Amino acid sequence: FLPLKQAATDSCQAKFGPLPSKWQMVPPEPSCMNKTSDWKLTVLKNGLYLIYGQVVFDTTYKGVAPFEVQLRKNKDAIQTLTNNFKIQTVGGIYELHTGDTVGLIFNSEDQILKSNTYWGIVLVANLQFNS
Amino acid sequence: FLPLKQAATDSCQAKFGPLPSKWQMVPPEPSCMNKTSDWKLTVLKNGLYLIYGQVVFDTTYKGVAPFEVQLRKNKDAIQTLTNNFKIQTVGGIYELHTGDTVGLIFNSEDQILKSNTYWGIVLVANLQFNS
Amino acid sequence: FLPLKQAATDSCQAKFGPLPSKWQMVPPEPSCMNKTSDWKLTVLKNGLYLIYGQVVFDTTYKGVAPFEVQLRKNKDAIQTLTNNFKIQTVGGIYELHTGDTVGLIFNSEDQILKSNTYWGIVLVANLQFNS
Repeated sequence: FLPLKQAATDSCQAKFGPLPSKWQMVPPEPSCMNKTSDWKLTVLKNGLYLIYGQVVFDTTYKGVAPFEVQLRKNKDAIQTLTNNFKIQTVGGIYELHTGDTVGLIFNSEDQILKSNTYWGIVLVANLQFNS
Repeated sequence: FLPLKQAATDSCQAKFGPLPSKWQMVPPEPSCMNKTSDWKLTVLKNGLYLIYGQVVFDTTYKGVAPFEVQLRKNKDAIQTLTNNFKIQTVGGIYELHTGDTVGLIFNSEDQILKSNTYWGIVLVANLQFNS
Repeated sequence: FLPLKQAATDSCQAKFGPLPSKWQMVPPEPSCMNKTSDWKLTVLKNGLYLIYGQVVFDTTYKGVAPFEVQLRKNKDAIQTLTNNFKIQTVGGIYELHTGDTVGLIFNSEDQILKSNTYWGIVLVANLQFNS
């Protein structure tokens, strides 16, 4: 006997990074999400998801772009990091729907210490509501 | 065999909005919470709850009230949104106790696109502590 | 039949405060964490953890230290509270690893109403990734 929610939580997780690790998914082809590209995935199932992660800026960066990382849901920034002085965490609790794309977007790739930066997502509850 | 926590998580969720949807509850009369009015409910059971949601301000609003939405626990604001430029998310992890009232409070009802605004709550763990 | 994640969630929780309560743990000696001192513990197991809590500043404090409380993971502040005017909540979703120390650090002990201040942690998912 395995209730629906239980099954979902145990079997639908993904994490990208820190490099050299790219997408790791549990199970390898989870039913609730699909990797789209580096740092980005698409949700296949309506649900409540926990997102977590950490971004480390490279403080030796010499370029002119402002330090900025966004966690985006489709075209909307749902979290924006602009401080460069510390380990920063991303994450929260989001209702996501089939087709939503979620990913970390860097203002400039070389501002980031990718060997210390990662994000992950876990399905915690199937949505049982109509909308 | 169904452990207590499992039972709780699967059977106690509520969500209000986006309009025209009002309160949806799973099960229809959940043991852990009770709707009080639009946007507001009362907790019936000590526990750890995930709150999630999204607020969309109406940027065509012409009134003079500052844009502001609060997520309140009883009389305390536990989260305040004041930016009007984006989809904004509310939520977090809260220990709530029997009798606590939680709700979204709008500074001005017509600042909000209620057809895109919602919040929900899920019981994730029964508190097993004395206080 | 009890899946791994389920077992973890039900059996690994800790909470410190509000005083006079100090550490309460479920079970009394949980496999995933170990209390280190007041307000601080060490994680014994890689996983995804929910952290929650509330800090109430004593607004009658007459000292000169700025109001500040940090939630720290090892030596890094992962959340900083500096406002003194309200109940404030801490918390979030963190990937923690064996040996990580997590705790609340007060700038000045007597700025805090410890009878209203607490934090807790619950293991929500075992990490099934390599790094």
